[in-house]
Amino acid sequence: MPKLLFYLETATPLGTARLSGHKTLSPSMPALPPAEIGAPFSEIDTPALVIDLDAMERNMTLLAERVRALGVRLRPHAKTHKSAIIAAKQIALGAVGICCQKVAEAEALAAGGVRDILVSNEVVGARKLARLAALARQVKVGVCVDRFEQIALLDEAARQAGSKIDVLVEIDVGGRRCGVAPGPEAARFAAAIARCAHLRFGGLQAYHGRAQHLRTPAERRAAIEAAQQDVIDTAAHLKAAGFTCDTIGGAGTGTFMLEGASGVWNELQAGSYIFMDADYARNVSEEGGNAPRFEHALFVLATVMSANAPDQVVVDAGHKALSNDSGFPDVWQRPGLAYQRPSDEHGVITVAPGAAPPAWGDKLLLVPGHCDPTVNLHDWYVGVRDFGTPRARVETLWPIDARGALG
Amino acid sequence: MPKLLFYLETATPLGTARLSGHKTLSPSMPALPPAEIGAPFSEIDTPALVIDLDAMERNMTLLAERVRALGVRLRPHAKTHKSAIIAAKQIALGAVGICCQKVAEAEALAAGGVRDILVSNEVVGARKLARLAALARQVKVGVCVDRFEQIALLDEAARQAGSKIDVLVEIDVGGRRCGVAPGPEAARFAAAIARCAHLRFGGLQAYHGRAQHLRTPAERRAAIEAAQQDVIDTAAHLKAAGFTCDTIGGAGTGTFMLEGASGVWNELQAGSYIFMDADYARNVSEEGGNAPRFEHALFVLATVMSANAPDQVVVDAGHKALSNDSGFPDVWQRPGLAYQRPSDEHGVITVAPGAAPPAWGDKLLLVPGHCDPTVNLHDWYVGVRDFGTPRARVETLWPIDARGALG
Repeated sequence: MPKLLFYLETATPLGTARLSGHKTLSPSMPALPPAEIGAPFSEIDTPALVIDLDAMERNMTLLAERVRALGVRLRPHAKTHKSAIIAAKQIALGAVGICCQKVAEAEALAAGGVRDILVSNEVVGARKLARLAALARQVKVGVCVDRFEQIALLDEAARQAGSKIDVLVEIDVGGRRCGVAPGPEAARFAAAIARCAHLRFGGLQAYHGRAQHLRTPAERRAAIEAAQQDVIDTAAHLKAAGFTCDTIGGAGTGTFMLEGASGVWNELQAGSYIFMDADYARNVSEEGGNAPRFEHALFVLATVMSANAPDQVVVDAGHKALSNDSGFPDVWQRPGLAYQRPSDEHGVITVAPGAAPPAWGDKLLLVPGHCDPTVNLHDWYVGVRDFGTPRARVETLWPIDARGALG
Repeated sequence: MPKLLFYLETATPLGTARLSGHKTLSPSMPALPPAEIGAPFSEIDTPALVIDLDAMERNMTLLAERVRALGVRLRPHAKTHKSAIIAAKQIALGAVGICCQKVAEAEALAAGGVRDILVSNEVVGARKLARLAALARQVKVGVCVDRFEQIALLDEAARQAGSKIDVLVEIDVGGRRCGVAPGPEAARFAAAIARCAHLRFGGLQAYHGRAQHLRTPAERRAAIEAAQQDVIDTAAHLKAAGFTCDTIGGAGTGTFMLEGASGVWNELQAGSYIFMDADYARNVSEEGGNAPRFEHALFVLATVMSANAPDQVVVDAGHKALSNDSGFPDVWQRPGLAYQRPSDEHGVITVAPGAAPPAWGDKLLLVPGHCDPTVNLHDWYVGVRDFGTPRARVETLWPIDARGALG
């Protein structure tokens, strides 16, 4: 494997990010971007991951305003966008830092200038703990635990790295995934963390993932009310044991207004709101409620590569360009067209009777069923200004810094 | 975006591959590999894409022998593995070249030393055609068409590049995806291709994708018999118009014995056989038939990161490490364990009553539901020798050269 010594300096909105060292190079370096800055929309090659910059900025401002009005902190989840540039924009709008799920994501975002990162997840494995602890020398790092043995391992990793790590105890508030049971257990964890010289007890992680996608407002409200009772209960045990929680974190795009208004959570971790996907759009909003309406701001642009049947055409974006885990993409503003039967590199667009069939070579915008894993399939964002107008142009190309950051 | 001038030379089994030029670098360069060469199996970090090298080599040899015995050519599909090193091994075992689906895949594999590449797909868009034509100056390139207008565009791209491209006419033999209708149409395409100074008529592409995953041998046989009739019919029209087909290509891992024995197809394009996924394993083999049994050779290694319930644990591999489009992964050699409810970076492993529950920190091997898009989520293969034995060690780290090669 050939190796190359490199040194990079990148200007980011947060200052200059530096990255240097030996890195293994191979032809699997990121693909060239599918467009050039300044190009008209029509010249974007496909498949491409396209951002409507105006819509994304409106989403970011809207959420930041709502969270500010709720009087709580915002720490958006970067597992959605995996981009240091977008993280910097969120921080410029008032976010205290960002969340991610993996150490490798945290490394990529720190390299891009982010200074305060919570890995809102458990990190298991000696190699990953050593990397996390090393990163904590450079930037403020938090992490979650739900296992007693893990506390000593984290402390030892931080001791060896000469760093300090914030540790949140994750409680299971209904997602049935990670976390300890709500109640007295968290206080025993807090006491163990507080005894460690290289750890700080940071509070509770109380995220209800399943609640985000419950379709009706009543279901979401019931789920978050139950979670709220769990958090109150657990915090009371902590208080009785002499611990206060700097952070009670959680919430996502589907429920953040509920957690934010609860008086219990003080740091909200929504992520998908910047892009909105087809699955989130299937959530029903409360009649007359004041839930903000986020706009679709992320699209996969695809070309009609085959059009030999009256009732369908084929586009050049399949499983490798779109994650179909939460349903197929919607075809943007083309009534009667439906994305169906994807294979690795193809999707079939069915044409309902009476609908206008796309022509061979036409480009279609697809709203991903699930943004986060779709973003992870691409190397570049193509940021478009004046999206949907004749003036639409490529304003930016942003690397998806933490693409493939699995470890 | 910082730019870097680079020059690489990589030794491959096919000779020295050279790659040079300006390339945009960003932190989204490939993640570091999750293991080191020589490390024991237990030291592989997770999630990791692991190959059982012995099983893969047996699969490759078995298929090559079967295709040789059928008296037809082998051109395996590299959309499965996206690796120039694996392609070189297939060619060393007798393959005439490889297939891929995208121009960017062809570029990555050519950069890794592959000299004969069929893009078994339509390529639409001026930028991609220019790249395809440029590549045809360096290596033998074939491509498919199913649209008349495309022929002149291809010829013009090859003229501008000063290259020559082989063109196969794709016919729809039952997949209802791309391709022209079987019958006389292909002869009109062949005539148009033959009139172009920079194109060569190469024959027919006749791949029945849907047939690969029909569960019973009778269903698969019926599908391929119908496809065979389509090919015979189309070839007769071509012959009447004075054209012979150098290549009649198609077939996949599920049906290649049928196409190979038909006397009609002469170039087989199976790909998944090297790794075998959980979905292919659900195909039923013919009672007493002679279909080869390929072994699972590809796994996602995951760590149990949370274990706080008696009936389930949580692993660190979700949608971003596994493509779940064809069903969830199987848990390898752990009866009673089932992978369920994936989220982006988590999977829940349910434990059936009486089954041995995995411990916190344990590593589990997952057999991907669908290999091809799962491979595309990773930057590295971790090649393990003596897999499944106490001597298991990391023998190789191979970059996934065409990972993310969408365009």
